[in-house]
Amino acid sequence: MKTYDKQDFPVSNVRRFLEPGPIVLVSSVWKDKMNIMTMGWHMIMEFEPSLVGCYIWTENHSFEMVRRSKECVINVPTAEIAPKVVGIGNTTGSKIDKFNKFALTAQPAVKVKAPLIAECFASFECRLADGSLIDKYSLFILEVVKAHVARAPNYPRTLHYRGDGIFMIAGTNTARYRKLFRPEML
Amino acid sequence: MKTYDKQDFPVSNVRRFLEPGPIVLVSSVWKDKMNIMTMGWHMIMEFEPSLVGCYIWTENHSFEMVRRSKECVINVPTAEIAPKVVGIGNTTGSKIDKFNKFALTAQPAVKVKAPLIAECFASFECRLADGSLIDKYSLFILEVVKAHVARAPNYPRTLHYRGDGIFMIAGTNTARYRKLFRPEML
Repeated sequence: MKTYDKQDFPVSNVRRFLEPGPIVLVSSVWKDKMNIMTMGWHMIMEFEPSLVGCYIWTENHSFEMVRRSKECVINVPTAEIAPKVVGIGNTTGSKIDKFNKFALTAQPAVKVKAPLIAECFASFECRLADGSLIDKYSLFILEVVKAHVARAPNYPRTLHYRGDGIFMIAGTNTARYRKLFRPEML
Repeated sequence: MKTYDKQDFPVSNVRRFLEPGPIVLVSSVWKDKMNIMTMGWHMIMEFEPSLVGCYIWTENHSFEMVRRSKECVINVPTAEIAPKVVGIGNTTGSKIDKFNKFALTAQPAVKVKAPLIAECFASFECRLADGSLIDKYSLFILEVVKAHVARAPNYPRTLHYRGDGIFMIAGTNTARYRKLFRPEML
């Protein structure tokens, strides 16, 4: 399975990969156990600090792991590992070791204890910035504190979920409308 | 300009169009003035009720219009009207009538006063469900109370923003991984 050699990337620009709405894999660690969950509900909320809002269902094994450790890594997978992404969503970390089961490689992060996933194109180390909306909305407001992105390709073929088992796969990227933007609105 | 004949659609399934992360057009009305803004930061937060979290910047003219009217419509545009989507993002409703300027057709909604945009593939009528996070995070938690979706195509060619003037255009849709899902995880 291909792994990506990732480079340092500005945390204020993670929108480039998260704003188009990909399915992501959230890795976490708590009491020496690692876990991974598949997540589709997230949004950019600020550039500086680099905030991302994430919905983690209370029934997910990762819910308590992220809530208690106050950390996680948001990893961006590509279509090549779609079967693993589905498998991770199908299973629970309370019963299996997902890194082992899905043959994924945990790499040490720089600023958090949760691991990066080597087979993912990009990995964003996050700390819980505001946990006050977890009880009411399962909403974790995370700050991206360190970002790692592969040099190539420029834009990965990400998976975007539509429900009912249907994925949209990222299409073409175009700068053809760029000239229409006022510079301050880019 | 093509307009879409939209049908009633279950509000609990708007994820089909919003979860893959498209740029949307938010229409609103306040004191008899209509407006439209381009929005990229949103996420599904619940199926029933059908909740969508949206970030509307305080500097947007629409911010006060949605906050005060407690309503809006989230419209899903396609790549065909990308120049209008960019133009709407470039301009402010404090100075111009965007429906007129961008030759878009306002249609009456059923449950809210804000108008649908006829040239958009889908339109979701929303009411403000929780405004308590507006001050701190510019986060509007909206409930989709009525959904209108065109019958064809099944999946529109939506625009997904990457920052810096680059759009990703929705790619192919596939059910090839559907058989890997446990039924309750679809």
